[in-house]
Amino acid sequence: MVSRPQDLREFEFVKIWKLLIKHTERGNKMAKDKKMVEAITSMDEDFAQWYTDVVKKAELADYSSVKGFVVLKPYGFGIWENIQKTLDSAFKSTGVENVCMPLLIPESLINKEKDHVEGFAPEAAWVTHGGSEELQERLCVRPTSETLFCDFYSKDIRSYRDLPKVYNQWCSVVRWEKETRPFLRTREFLWQEGHTAHATEEEAQARTIQMLNVYVDFFENELAIPVIKGQKTEKEKFAGAVSTYTIEAMMHDGKALQSGTSHNFGDGFARAYDVTFTDKDNSIQYAHQTSWGVSTRMIGAIIMVHGDDNGLVLPPRIAPTQVMIIPIMQNKEGVLEKANELKNRLSADFRVKLDDSDKTPGFKFADQEMRGIPVRVEIGPKDIEANKCIVVRRDNREKTEVSLDELETKLAEILESIQKDMLERARAHRDSHTYSVTTYDEFKETIANKPGFIKAHWCESRECEDKIKEDTSASARCIPFEDGNSEGVCVCCGKPAKKLVYWGKAY
Amino acid sequence: MVSRPQDLREFEFVKIWKLLIKHTERGNKMAKDKKMVEAITSMDEDFAQWYTDVVKKAELADYSSVKGFVVLKPYGFGIWENIQKTLDSAFKSTGVENVCMPLLIPESLINKEKDHVEGFAPEAAWVTHGGSEELQERLCVRPTSETLFCDFYSKDIRSYRDLPKVYNQWCSVVRWEKETRPFLRTREFLWQEGHTAHATEEEAQARTIQMLNVYVDFFENELAIPVIKGQKTEKEKFAGAVSTYTIEAMMHDGKALQSGTSHNFGDGFARAYDVTFTDKDNSIQYAHQTSWGVSTRMIGAIIMVHGDDNGLVLPPRIAPTQVMIIPIMQNKEGVLEKANELKNRLSADFRVKLDDSDKTPGFKFADQEMRGIPVRVEIGPKDIEANKCIVVRRDNREKTEVSLDELETKLAEILESIQKDMLERARAHRDSHTYSVTTYDEFKETIANKPGFIKAHWCESRECEDKIKEDTSASARCIPFEDGNSEGVCVCCGKPAKKLVYWGKAY
Repeated sequence: MVSRPQDLREFEFVKIWKLLIKHTERGNKMAKDKKMVEAITSMDEDFAQWYTDVVKKAELADYSSVKGFVVLKPYGFGIWENIQKTLDSAFKSTGVENVCMPLLIPESLINKEKDHVEGFAPEAAWVTHGGSEELQERLCVRPTSETLFCDFYSKDIRSYRDLPKVYNQWCSVVRWEKETRPFLRTREFLWQEGHTAHATEEEAQARTIQMLNVYVDFFENELAIPVIKGQKTEKEKFAGAVSTYTIEAMMHDGKALQSGTSHNFGDGFARAYDVTFTDKDNSIQYAHQTSWGVSTRMIGAIIMVHGDDNGLVLPPRIAPTQVMIIPIMQNKEGVLEKANELKNRLSADFRVKLDDSDKTPGFKFADQEMRGIPVRVEIGPKDIEANKCIVVRRDNREKTEVSLDELETKLAEILESIQKDMLERARAHRDSHTYSVTTYDEFKETIANKPGFIKAHWCESRECEDKIKEDTSASARCIPFEDGNSEGVCVCCGKPAKKLVYWGKAY
Repeated sequence: MVSRPQDLREFEFVKIWKLLIKHTERGNKMAKDKKMVEAITSMDEDFAQWYTDVVKKAELADYSSVKGFVVLKPYGFGIWENIQKTLDSAFKSTGVENVCMPLLIPESLINKEKDHVEGFAPEAAWVTHGGSEELQERLCVRPTSETLFCDFYSKDIRSYRDLPKVYNQWCSVVRWEKETRPFLRTREFLWQEGHTAHATEEEAQARTIQMLNVYVDFFENELAIPVIKGQKTEKEKFAGAVSTYTIEAMMHDGKALQSGTSHNFGDGFARAYDVTFTDKDNSIQYAHQTSWGVSTRMIGAIIMVHGDDNGLVLPPRIAPTQVMIIPIMQNKEGVLEKANELKNRLSADFRVKLDDSDKTPGFKFADQEMRGIPVRVEIGPKDIEANKCIVVRRDNREKTEVSLDELETKLAEILESIQKDMLERARAHRDSHTYSVTTYDEFKETIANKPGFIKAHWCESRECEDKIKEDTSASARCIPFEDGNSEGVCVCCGKPAKKLVYWGKAY
């Protein structure tokens, strides 16, 4: 046991050190250089700590003074802005229109759909006072906006001519989670939520799948993340949905991340909220509805799928900066001038930055790698003389000597290669960590020793699903579109089974 | 007095009528045709009702079931998206970076700056419960985010090297207003809020004015709204600011709309929130801060500056649809085909739509005018034969016959003219409704009989400012940058005055 005086001494020391760090430039510089030069935790050693280190040191996000809420810093938000721009334009090309619904939901409104309120009430944040008065009815900070869209549609839709409604909003939602981690689970997060209303069941189902496919394309082509698309089990589906479809991605540590969902509500919400329309034959019909969303969780997926021990690795298509120019011996005459000239030239085709700070090239390389900037262009006096530069890929550190005359062409090729290789690497990792098993012993042994997905048949009983969860902490990630209806025997009870399921531990 | 049975009969009638309207296609069609064909309230007859009619019939926004909160419908939100895109890129070209701060603010945090909390507490909405538990400390739904940015900066800024910080966020804020009107005053509204931190007083002041000028340019060049830029009086400045600058626009009814503000906080917030940095000489300094914002109020300004008795008139640069193609005799062979061909052709250069619904051309014209779409292109069988079309401007209804061969060029010219003419028209309206007065009698007579701005000198005493407000309900809109420091006598007390003020009734 440490004695009291020692305690006090330690306290004083820490206090003085902190003051030094905060208040002297020297302290700052020491603390900063240390921050960058010191390697982050290795991912194989402690994956969770590695994740936290990357989030912090790549300056993506930071904890705020509001418990469970984070600040998205410029670099992290820049990734979100690129995601939003690309995805929004993909949405719009399928006829989606953006709107803005209220932030708050009256309790009576959210209570109308029983399953839905049961699903979300435990995590709801409630506004009880407005101005100086207590509200007559408390208002829920939206955890999701089905109820508000239904309320709006019930008034706005009258005839089949008003259908379909294919609305979306980009906003933040609040869910009072107990454990939080930046991007993966926070009390507030950014997302988009699409909410549609259709005249027929078939149309609603088609839209549900269409939007899931928009997500699949976006993940594979833009984020370079391969996903398993499939249907959620009854246990795992969204509160109030008839069916929920999902895309599941495998992180570097073998765990699953539910990365986007698309729900078909049938006419359940329409019945609860009176969303009706007059059909062509003058009969009154309930609308069929869907909703679908992806969130800043995607940034968590990017980190955990592509990152390495040097930090973040960003897919070129969504990287806020695609090319970092790093001058070598920048104090030599003409170097900074040439670097600036290159920056201006390349800005026409790429998102480019020039690091002309007074730090060492080594420091700048480490910083560019930590931020996952897809390529760096090194240029020094000798390069300039030889009319060339060195292009270094972030993903595999491959170096290429490139003539300045053909830099644009080469950079475009290299960025395209990186994008493609990142997807292939992630796919290979996932495939080599996916195991087909047929017996429960095999299942348990695999889950205990081999991080990854397990493909195994299931008899569709809740009992088996619960037992697997309890015994192994693996959940049913989805019944994949591919092979999901194949026959076999249930991996848990051994009875005949008509569904194949992807199982895994999940974030 | 109406007898009870009559009441009941009326009640039944209304009920049946409503059912008819809601549930029969015929009723729908009747109600809808009526809605469009029926002229909106004339602006000279009842400006407030005209405003409400335009908001509703141009389908910009609608009331929601949450009191004081509105739904921004696709067309209204489309205007906001265009505003956001243009303004965001103007911000970024001055070095602004976007971030995302928490939605909620702990009470203890907001309480740290005395003036600020006094200004915002009366309108605050409070979250008191999260999940199933009562919170230990209640959280305010952000009415503005100075306190959160300060809290973040106090941890993130250490050295002069970390400065300046020029951050912005696009989000919604909540203020518990008693009286609400779509776009002008609602309990939740969308805006951007920029928050910066600088090493020196001069730099902070320069940024304050720089952002005000970004707003001025945006209003004049994009929204075609001329503004008076100037400084707010002590009474009218932002809670916690050293000085507040504003842009004031005149609405068609002569009233002022405060359309954007930019605040210099000096080091007041920095002292309250401990936002310090180590300067070059190793001394600890407080940062100097600013904030600046514009909101969906701008859409209210667009409506009230440019609208007319046929509805909305949108400036081409921010109109979601710039060109509406309306086929004439569309059932004749080749008409719809040609109209579609035109639409595809024009889409390369303009935001174009084709109204190929089965409504009459007259209905379509009225609808296009109601939505303020800058030009319509009418094309029928005879036009096609003559290889021409009719282009009709929304703003002055001028018709031009244009050869299809030169349609792009002519449309570009016409849209440019509209943009320019709208600004000039608004400027002429404002200038002809601005009155310079020197005596209090003149002031009172002018304010009572001539809607508009009054330019009059002021002795800088709060007494005179209060008296003017009480006697005339006009407030000091701003001390303009132009002529604001000219000398005269106070219009209220007659004493020597060194400030010229724009006075007016305001939204």
